[in-house]
Amino acid sequence: METFVESSRMIAKNPVPGANGRIVHSPTMTVAHWSFDAGTVLPEHSHPHEQVALVVEGTLALTVNGVTRNLNAGDAAIIPGNVPHEARAVTACRIVDTFNPVREDLR
Amino acid sequence: METFVESSRMIAKNPVPGANGRIVHSPTMTVAHWSFDAGTVLPEHSHPHEQVALVVEGTLALTVNGVTRNLNAGDAAIIPGNVPHEARAVTACRIVDTFNPVREDLR
Repeated sequence: METFVESSRMIAKNPVPGANGRIVHSPTMTVAHWSFDAGTVLPEHSHPHEQVALVVEGTLALTVNGVTRNLNAGDAAIIPGNVPHEARAVTACRIVDTFNPVREDLR
Repeated sequence: METFVESSRMIAKNPVPGANGRIVHSPTMTVAHWSFDAGTVLPEHSHPHEQVALVVEGTLALTVNGVTRNLNAGDAAIIPGNVPHEARAVTACRIVDTFNPVREDLR
């Protein structure tokens, strides 16, 4: 595993229109750097991996287990494994999602 | 553990002048959101935790095990446990560091 990973060499993901991500995997974690266009909706889903979602720019409406909160730049959410969650970009935004263990489905 | 963590309620860290961080812990990970003023140096250090460093704004010169690389917005580094590393902010920058397991020393 290489130490330095330029953005251009990361795995690109586009799960829904308006959501563009770059993914990097370490031995025990996956880090995803997302850009969402305003209005983008990532429909409800879940996974066994623990997740920390950190908004680094803009405003994201995040629903976790039926509770919705607007997260602004600097705010975060801790999402336990197997808990359903969905996201809607209130404004254009950037999010860093971290997962443990590695998201093998995002390789 | 609460699901939603506003930036203002995160643990604030200021390890060296010019480096300001907000820290959030999940059960298995620690996520640190750093702002570095231009020229800030985080001296060489190491820890047993695996780390992923993702630059979200600006340029950071990161040295890992004696190898230095300039990371621009979107670039990352994977730092294995116990590997010495240091950082210098080439410009004002923001970085998201993720650690596994939890950094108990940052509680």
